[in-house]
Amino acid sequence: MSILMVGSVALDSVRTPRGSVEDALGGSATHGALAARQFAPVEIVGVVGEDFPRRHINLLKRCGVGLTGLEVVKGGKTFRWGGRYFDDINQRETLFTDLGVFENFRPKIPAEAAALPYVFLANIDPELQLQVLKQCRRPKLVLLDTMNLWIDIRREALEEVLRRVDLILMNNEEACQFARTTSVERAAQTLLEYGVRRAIIKKGEHGCLMFSRQGFFAAPALPLADVVDPTGAGDTFAGGFLGYVAKKNSLTDDVMRQAVVVGTAMASFCVQGFGVERVASLKREDLRERVKQVAAAMACPPVRI
Amino acid sequence: MSILMVGSVALDSVRTPRGSVEDALGGSATHGALAARQFAPVEIVGVVGEDFPRRHINLLKRCGVGLTGLEVVKGGKTFRWGGRYFDDINQRETLFTDLGVFENFRPKIPAEAAALPYVFLANIDPELQLQVLKQCRRPKLVLLDTMNLWIDIRREALEEVLRRVDLILMNNEEACQFARTTSVERAAQTLLEYGVRRAIIKKGEHGCLMFSRQGFFAAPALPLADVVDPTGAGDTFAGGFLGYVAKKNSLTDDVMRQAVVVGTAMASFCVQGFGVERVASLKREDLRERVKQVAAAMACPPVRI
Repeated sequence: MSILMVGSVALDSVRTPRGSVEDALGGSATHGALAARQFAPVEIVGVVGEDFPRRHINLLKRCGVGLTGLEVVKGGKTFRWGGRYFDDINQRETLFTDLGVFENFRPKIPAEAAALPYVFLANIDPELQLQVLKQCRRPKLVLLDTMNLWIDIRREALEEVLRRVDLILMNNEEACQFARTTSVERAAQTLLEYGVRRAIIKKGEHGCLMFSRQGFFAAPALPLADVVDPTGAGDTFAGGFLGYVAKKNSLTDDVMRQAVVVGTAMASFCVQGFGVERVASLKREDLRERVKQVAAAMACPPVRI
Repeated sequence: MSILMVGSVALDSVRTPRGSVEDALGGSATHGALAARQFAPVEIVGVVGEDFPRRHINLLKRCGVGLTGLEVVKGGKTFRWGGRYFDDINQRETLFTDLGVFENFRPKIPAEAAALPYVFLANIDPELQLQVLKQCRRPKLVLLDTMNLWIDIRREALEEVLRRVDLILMNNEEACQFARTTSVERAAQTLLEYGVRRAIIKKGEHGCLMFSRQGFFAAPALPLADVVDPTGAGDTFAGGFLGYVAKKNSLTDDVMRQAVVVGTAMASFCVQGFGVERVASLKREDLRERVKQVAAAMACPPVRI
């Protein structure tokens, strides 16, 4: 089954202890789509400026990502983000954010895309996410991502979106900020009270937690000695997760757990290259191997005491 | 099989957002022993002053902890630690450390205890840990714990101990500090290079990682809404871990993984009460239930992609 992804398509300039890139293909919808397309057809809805390099369009097309919903604004500038990661690769600072055409982005979902059963509302203004939901025609599953900025300045709209989606993806700081607590457990319970079926809490190098009313699931991140660039790892996780669910076309607890493992494996490739370079060229065999590694890291024979 | 535990027996005064206690029974050997005795006989070697309350001795005895190696120094003062936990329960500050009789502690291992097959070198000066090892008679497995202080001021001795033990237990900050890296993966590899068979990295609320030359295992901490007092959680983990291994009397990878799960479950009880109150009164049935919860949190059907 196919997936609709609405989010940013961006040009990232990133410096890390391992090197730097300029105007690399980035953005939440981009990272999500390049991960998800391993398993299911994906349509992106987003916006870029006339300056968006042809080679980035070509790469997305070559990877089979549907771009009918990608608006190109004449004379406009593409959303640009610049950031720097420190020696402790979990720490970063934003150097600049030039919204460009993203500032006036009003998502228009093409008729065919609006009927897609799986939807990823990647990190954009929750007001826009509400507009997307109004255009969607009874999706089977909607996955929501967001960020601290929207918790600060768009809380009401975000709460409104939360009441209308099935899964929420947040990192632990965001979840705790949203729920006004220091306990991830309590934060997750607060999120579930909004009616989402599952709250997935990303913890970066500490892996991720998935909470539902029925229980709790945890998957570790693979410890990697060679982290090159963490940008986009969360969106890559989301894309891998949703791609797997869309392929299985099933919402059972088993499939959700498996999808977390797939997302984890996918995200581990993202951080091993700059931008999308590793995920865009990812071979199924390598992904399969990585999925096995994650599963092996969690495997434990029954304990009888 | 029986276990020898060498470490502190202390009086803890702790304030947390959930309340406070004064002169509560604490110390690394205490927490370790009260966890391990669920599975195997334990002998403590440590030191207290004449002020050590009779009721603490009685509790340890009632729990079946062997105290022939517990030295009571006439006229001496028991090691006291005072600390305060913040609203973010993962943050704490030490208010005072009164070493008392612990300052001149020279562990003397009674002959019978020196022949025990499982040894926990709880967190004390690595010079003393070396003295313990010299007195031990070919133990089957030695588990080492330490802390940042010894990395700072006793690095050489610590390295010497590391070369002589089988398992090392560290939290992630300590491991990274010891290995002079920000990557837990690289820190673990450094620890393995000293010859330990496994490096177990504790990450508090993020669970723990176990590295060996053959691979990597991760177990999540149970997310608990009601953390009362985290003091002793690491030692309780160690005690549960080693108790289970001693009971199985086997060093296979499967047993080590199971032991991590048991240690995780045990530690989750520790933090739900002040001092040793929850673990000292722990019923097997409650522990069994908690072990099931940890296992369920890690369970994932095979992923085929």
